[in-house]
Amino acid sequence: MIQHPGNVFVVSAPSGAGKSTLTQRLVQEVPDLSFSISFTTRKPRPGEVDGRDYFFIDEARFDAMVAGGGFVEWVQVYGHRYGTGRDWLNGVLATGRDVLLDIETTGALNLRGAIPDACMIFLLPPSAAALEQRLRGRGKDSDEQIRIRLQHARHELELYGAYDYLVMNDDLELAYRQFESIILATRARRERMAPVAQGILQGF
Amino acid sequence: MIQHPGNVFVVSAPSGAGKSTLTQRLVQEVPDLSFSISFTTRKPRPGEVDGRDYFFIDEARFDAMVAGGGFVEWVQVYGHRYGTGRDWLNGVLATGRDVLLDIETTGALNLRGAIPDACMIFLLPPSAAALEQRLRGRGKDSDEQIRIRLQHARHELELYGAYDYLVMNDDLELAYRQFESIILATRARRERMAPVAQGILQGF
Repeated sequence: MIQHPGNVFVVSAPSGAGKSTLTQRLVQEVPDLSFSISFTTRKPRPGEVDGRDYFFIDEARFDAMVAGGGFVEWVQVYGHRYGTGRDWLNGVLATGRDVLLDIETTGALNLRGAIPDACMIFLLPPSAAALEQRLRGRGKDSDEQIRIRLQHARHELELYGAYDYLVMNDDLELAYRQFESIILATRARRERMAPVAQGILQGF
Repeated sequence: MIQHPGNVFVVSAPSGAGKSTLTQRLVQEVPDLSFSISFTTRKPRPGEVDGRDYFFIDEARFDAMVAGGGFVEWVQVYGHRYGTGRDWLNGVLATGRDVLLDIETTGALNLRGAIPDACMIFLLPPSAAALEQRLRGRGKDSDEQIRIRLQHARHELELYGAYDYLVMNDDLELAYRQFESIILATRARRERMAPVAQGILQGF
């Protein structure tokens, strides 16, 4: 089997669509798939480990990386900045592993420009009502926060046309299988497998 | 869930690559996937049933269907003609079911012209040596026939660039999973799922 450089998978979803559950299971069960580790200027929360959850850096270093083209995408959210490091990403891909990036729509659209052949997946809630019910069920947000989250979800959903795949998370097991299938199928794409086919042809 | 018209999957492979085993299991296990039933001018073999294995028709009717644009693709092999009926295919796709067409490379390239968004899959043997070993293991062919089959396999392999996906059948279980993944992933493509996303958006 000839090594090919790894694939980049991007997943975006409105809050409450079940993204964390699905992506955590994916990196556990799908071989040769790593979670992206972002750089951030926000401070570590209790339990978070530098180099595992994030690379925690200060504003000056983030500025320097931006200036030096060190990010394939970065965004600012609630006063903190988050970015995907170019060297870090290239380093993982060069080993042949695939990388799963969990980024919101704005970052995803930036990344599409930097990595045109990234495979972009949007996770759909089954309905607005189901999303609201899930957000209420978590019991973390006030009515006002839920209203804002639903408004934000709508804005994110409006960008579905920029994604390659849309997976609806109605049944968690079905959504997982579809998600996993997108990863396995991408690995079988002609562009990726052409060196293998070429190698087999040479044996004839 | 909004009904979308079904997808067309085309699979080609050199003789001995394991195509029959894989495709038979796919139509058994993947829901809403039907095997294509071709029209042919060859006579039924013992056990073959008209309308299940093939639609058996005479030369005159085949000629008339060709003249009337009744085939999305047709080929002549060893003096017999085989074709995929346009009305038959459209009828199945309209129900929302996907159709799996098992056709050789020449027919597949013709079909690409008629159905540009068909998902085309080529099944690769692990190597020339492995293919030869499988053909010998079947004990059906003379040395000369095996030489011709390998030559033909090489010509077919040279057309891999026309396919969307290349699946290597080294480990049967892995090949099956990859094949199934291509079908499930295609069902999640944005073009197919856009009406679903649009419906969800309207609920916000």
